[in-house]
Amino acid sequence: MSQASGGPEIEQLIQLLSRLPGLGPRSGRRAVLHLIKKKEQLMIPLAAALDRAVAAVKVCETCGNIDTVSPCTICSDPRRGESGLLIVVEDVADLWALERAGIGAVRYHVLGGVLSPLDGIGPDDLSINQLVGRASDYKEIVIGVNATVEGQTTAHYITDRLADSGIAITRLAHGVPVGGELDYLDEGTLSQALKARTKF
Amino acid sequence: MSQASGGPEIEQLIQLLSRLPGLGPRSGRRAVLHLIKKKEQLMIPLAAALDRAVAAVKVCETCGNIDTVSPCTICSDPRRGESGLLIVVEDVADLWALERAGIGAVRYHVLGGVLSPLDGIGPDDLSINQLVGRASDYKEIVIGVNATVEGQTTAHYITDRLADSGIAITRLAHGVPVGGELDYLDEGTLSQALKARTKF
Ligand SMILES: [Zn+2]
Ligand SMILES: [Zn+2]
Repeated sequence: MSQASGGPEIEQLIQLLSRLPGLGPRSGRRAVLHLIKKKEQLMIPLAAALDRAVAAVKVCETCGNIDTVSPCTICSDPRRGESGLLIVVEDVADLWALERAGIGAVRYHVLGGVLSPLDGIGPDDLSINQLVGRASDYKEIVIGVNATVEGQTTAHYITDRLADSGIAITRLAHGVPVGGELDYLDEGTLSQALKARTKF
Repeated sequence: MSQASGGPEIEQLIQLLSRLPGLGPRSGRRAVLHLIKKKEQLMIPLAAALDRAVAAVKVCETCGNIDTVSPCTICSDPRRGESGLLIVVEDVADLWALERAGIGAVRYHVLGGVLSPLDGIGPDDLSINQLVGRASDYKEIVIGVNATVEGQTTAHYITDRLADSGIAITRLAHGVPVGGELDYLDEGTLSQALKARTKF
């Protein structure tokens, strides 16, 4: 065991790739062998793409989206503001899933997680103050956090914080299965969930 | 659909990562989000490791192993030659699996695949001539190709080519399940398979 596979540079690449979600030590090794076999078509382009992405990636200071500009393309698109809809999601993956579903010209707010007292995650660990700060620019806040216990606790906390603002607060309702995660839903379900949103 | 997730640099990174074995479009996106979240701890080190590996990786001109020197560390280690054993495998992944199993100080020959007339893969597409050329430096050639139809066809072809050489030809036998692939076997099975090798 533990003999190096092909030198320290290769061993280190295997170890880092193994830490990606969906990969492990064995699939990390297979990925590296695949990269080396496809050196010109895949490995060199991937190395270049990673370097470019490292240099370009920015977290949007307004909404928490990941883009190459901040404010992000969505936040700086005036048509996105006209709907008056701000959808609150846990994670950038959820924002991207809603965008892929083509749900319309809306804006987003990425919380960066959910409240979880057991894990020591309180309101100040999420972007809830920033949400409260920008909410008044919108007609309606649509809570799109996942239907987990922590997600629903977070939704209630946000609703309480915005209770006196007079802004309509709704949630994605129809079609989101209990315990399900937005990022795993198909586009039709997500579109339905927005259309059938209900009042908190 | 098809809306870009966070700019062309990010979109391109997702597309390239999605082409790794074990990943797809969804897990590629998740991997990229994970990388961006762990920019300092994972994304930047991975970019640097890829650049280093691109520059360092070499295919061993003797055996086909992947290393950062050619001839590789195994081929240039004189103790590896003393056993007189040369194990023939399909793929570098198989070589690495045998090395992880700690099967002893042996040498290898990576064929780069198996004979497959239907896919147009003939002897000249594999490193069979190179194997025949170096076989006389060894006392015994152990055929360690996978127990598939193509693998066994390849084993017989190699045996025929070496028939007049007087070199002992054996195969990994005990413990390798029919239809199984070396890279998925545990170390004990692989060690057993070498110990119980049988004559062709
Ligand atoms: Zn933004
Ligand atoms: Zn070698």
